[in-house]
Amino acid sequence: MTSRDAASSSELEQTLQAVDDGLEAALARLFAFLRIPSISTDPAYATQCQEAAAWAAKELVDLGFSATVHATPGHPVLVARTDSGAPRRVLFYGHYDVQPVDPLNLWHTPPFEPRMGETEDGRHTIVARGAADDKGQVMTFIEALRALKTTTGHLPVDVTLLLEGEEECGSPNLPSFLESHAAELKADIALVCDTGMWDAKTPSITTSLRGILHTELTISGPSRDLHSGLYGGAARNPIHVLSKIIADVHDEQGRVTIPGFYDDVVEPPAEILARWKALNFTPESFLKPVGLSEPAGEQDRLLIELVQSRPTFEINGIYGGYIGGGSKTIIPATATAKISFRLVADQDPAKIRAAFEQFVKARLPADCQFDLATGEGARAFMVPPESADLTAASAALKAEWQVEPVTIGSGGSIPVVGQFRKLLDLDTLLIGFGLDDDRVHSPNEKYDLTSFHKGTRSWVRILEALA
Amino acid sequence: MTSRDAASSSELEQTLQAVDDGLEAALARLFAFLRIPSISTDPAYATQCQEAAAWAAKELVDLGFSATVHATPGHPVLVARTDSGAPRRVLFYGHYDVQPVDPLNLWHTPPFEPRMGETEDGRHTIVARGAADDKGQVMTFIEALRALKTTTGHLPVDVTLLLEGEEECGSPNLPSFLESHAAELKADIALVCDTGMWDAKTPSITTSLRGILHTELTISGPSRDLHSGLYGGAARNPIHVLSKIIADVHDEQGRVTIPGFYDDVVEPPAEILARWKALNFTPESFLKPVGLSEPAGEQDRLLIELVQSRPTFEINGIYGGYIGGGSKTIIPATATAKISFRLVADQDPAKIRAAFEQFVKARLPADCQFDLATGEGARAFMVPPESADLTAASAALKAEWQVEPVTIGSGGSIPVVGQFRKLLDLDTLLIGFGLDDDRVHSPNEKYDLTSFHKGTRSWVRILEALA
Repeated sequence: MTSRDAASSSELEQTLQAVDDGLEAALARLFAFLRIPSISTDPAYATQCQEAAAWAAKELVDLGFSATVHATPGHPVLVARTDSGAPRRVLFYGHYDVQPVDPLNLWHTPPFEPRMGETEDGRHTIVARGAADDKGQVMTFIEALRALKTTTGHLPVDVTLLLEGEEECGSPNLPSFLESHAAELKADIALVCDTGMWDAKTPSITTSLRGILHTELTISGPSRDLHSGLYGGAARNPIHVLSKIIADVHDEQGRVTIPGFYDDVVEPPAEILARWKALNFTPESFLKPVGLSEPAGEQDRLLIELVQSRPTFEINGIYGGYIGGGSKTIIPATATAKISFRLVADQDPAKIRAAFEQFVKARLPADCQFDLATGEGARAFMVPPESADLTAASAALKAEWQVEPVTIGSGGSIPVVGQFRKLLDLDTLLIGFGLDDDRVHSPNEKYDLTSFHKGTRSWVRILEALA
Repeated sequence: MTSRDAASSSELEQTLQAVDDGLEAALARLFAFLRIPSISTDPAYATQCQEAAAWAAKELVDLGFSATVHATPGHPVLVARTDSGAPRRVLFYGHYDVQPVDPLNLWHTPPFEPRMGETEDGRHTIVARGAADDKGQVMTFIEALRALKTTTGHLPVDVTLLLEGEEECGSPNLPSFLESHAAELKADIALVCDTGMWDAKTPSITTSLRGILHTELTISGPSRDLHSGLYGGAARNPIHVLSKIIADVHDEQGRVTIPGFYDDVVEPPAEILARWKALNFTPESFLKPVGLSEPAGEQDRLLIELVQSRPTFEINGIYGGYIGGGSKTIIPATATAKISFRLVADQDPAKIRAAFEQFVKARLPADCQFDLATGEGARAFMVPPESADLTAASAALKAEWQVEPVTIGSGGSIPVVGQFRKLLDLDTLLIGFGLDDDRVHSPNEKYDLTSFHKGTRSWVRILEALA
């Protein structure tokens, strides 16, 4: 060990010690962030989204960053940066917006009053909307920056932080923002903290993501709600029409029947498939904890393929007619389904939407109309295998968790990763500390205290390793 | 003409004149009734239902009736009666409760602020929730009683009025009320005013009604809402399962596929069918005004059969997953459909419910559960052909409208008619003055001023004729 290595090794130990010593104060800051109900999909919370952006900006200014909250046609984008002249620069991406909280009655405590909790097997948790997705994860990075700054007085790399407020509603304004601020966002590598660990003890780096297409289908029939006694039997019911279309999308084998849907899907390499088989990813381990017993998708696929490398059609919400208490004997004028497709490999959101539109048209009775929303979409993404930065980050995670990190794909969609590639010419490392039982997007969302604490320590090690 | 006939003819003319002269005051009373938002399906309006019952009680007490508002486990039942010792007694049934008003934004004016309106072809209308169903119709009868009382000092028959407050939610408490008050409700004939005219110029007497079965189906899958990125492709989506079940209920020919569904359906007599064919009841006249072009039901049936003598399966409402603004990428834990069957001939609600339960079970994936509500039901009903009272009422209607009334069936369900038969051993004449364009159960419900005015005059004539 050279004396310089010894010095920086000791500096690293001191920084990690600072993370440990500062945990309570770090939690207090996270709780303050979690108290802001920055729900981006509901226009009623626009002010709270601004507040969340401003809160994070202040934290970073306190750490010596220059920070700008950029107005957009939607919720603001925060960009904060250091300019110490370090040889390398990382661009960190996260989001300050959170999912809606309904059904509110299923929360044990109010979603925006964060509290410490405990899992059945004794793990300490942080419970609040956004605890895991994504405020808790964002704060692991910011707390790592704080520990490095306060211990060593500087950062090992220059850092640009980009926090957006529309991730949960499809990031409609992010692409144009990235395009118009491309020069300012230049970096050597992008880091995204919005993914999960393999399990509570094993970190992971996500190297592939499914793409997504959001859309909404409304079927219209009668010009007004009709009395089902007077018209029932003769009048077309839009709920029946919509149900038939939804039912037709999957065949008995769980395959999507939209013509051309699988055209641009590619099979994972044999090596990846072999690695997946070895992971022992079973219905017992994956589905049983959420009350299910058997995979519902394509019957000739591995479970891990279904959630990582196969595309999907999913109804996220449906409504039509009378949905209040009691009954109301009507044939409704309209019925609506909120739809998302998960896309893989080369599937093009625009092409998939067009194919689905034809599919609907072919099934529409003569006296019905339909409206299919334009749709927000993003293609799937795959990180190039074994880049030097990936190797460095893997080693850093192994040092922290004392176990080899797993390199996996994710079924979720983080469109920004594709945009970084396309608009900023940047590779992205997706490293996050979420767990399968975090109840992301559900009531009683939580983030393990260990994820928060060791996540922060992990970023300290990764930033040192990337230098 | 004997001198007695001449006297009563002149008395009738005077009474009808009193109806004409009192129209403005009668409208003011109806408006007061319409201002009470007595929505029975929503527990939030319980007080307003009581208020509506009390309002009608006071009106009848003012006319010399004795009136009792009976508490029930649900909304109260009003019974008001005269006991003059007239040789015959009629039991009049109506309901003071109204349908919910959503979607509220489609109302041109607030639903409980009644106003006069005008149709495109120049007919004057009364616009409010309940204007036609059933407050306006109930008030035609009460205003006829008022005109008779004020002009002649007495009624030609004794009258018992029964106004219930749960017609729009399936009358759960009425059967037991009828059973326990059977002696008090004894009469020679029942009159129900909750049906429509054949067209704006032709009155009708309804002689058959479809029965009904209300129920609600909830499909449960995952134990909580899941992130559709992480679980999509592998986790069972209850909306898909529910849609498939709904889609399976009808075959390509529009027939219901539930085993045994048509077992107890009987064909209408050839004579009735021939009369129906002569009515020229077409998609053009019946469906076009509500924005539709072709009958949606069984393809081998007449349109009039579809809405009068054939049974139906209808989804009145559906909901599941995220239904707020924007999108939320979840696989929901549950999805629910509000269902009503229209029943005909000998179909038994309990048997139909059991058959549907088996149908659902046969289509349920291994890892889903379902809940099917017990269901409220009523069998279909048919009035015996050409009773003396029917003949008398027909003649009275002809005298008022100067055209032969049409004897028809109705696709709607008025369970009380079957209960009168079963529990009170009473025949019922269904005479009402609603029109097809009344938007019953829909926004901007209306009742023609002519229906209200000539409806009142009709009852004066009918009560004289039944004496």
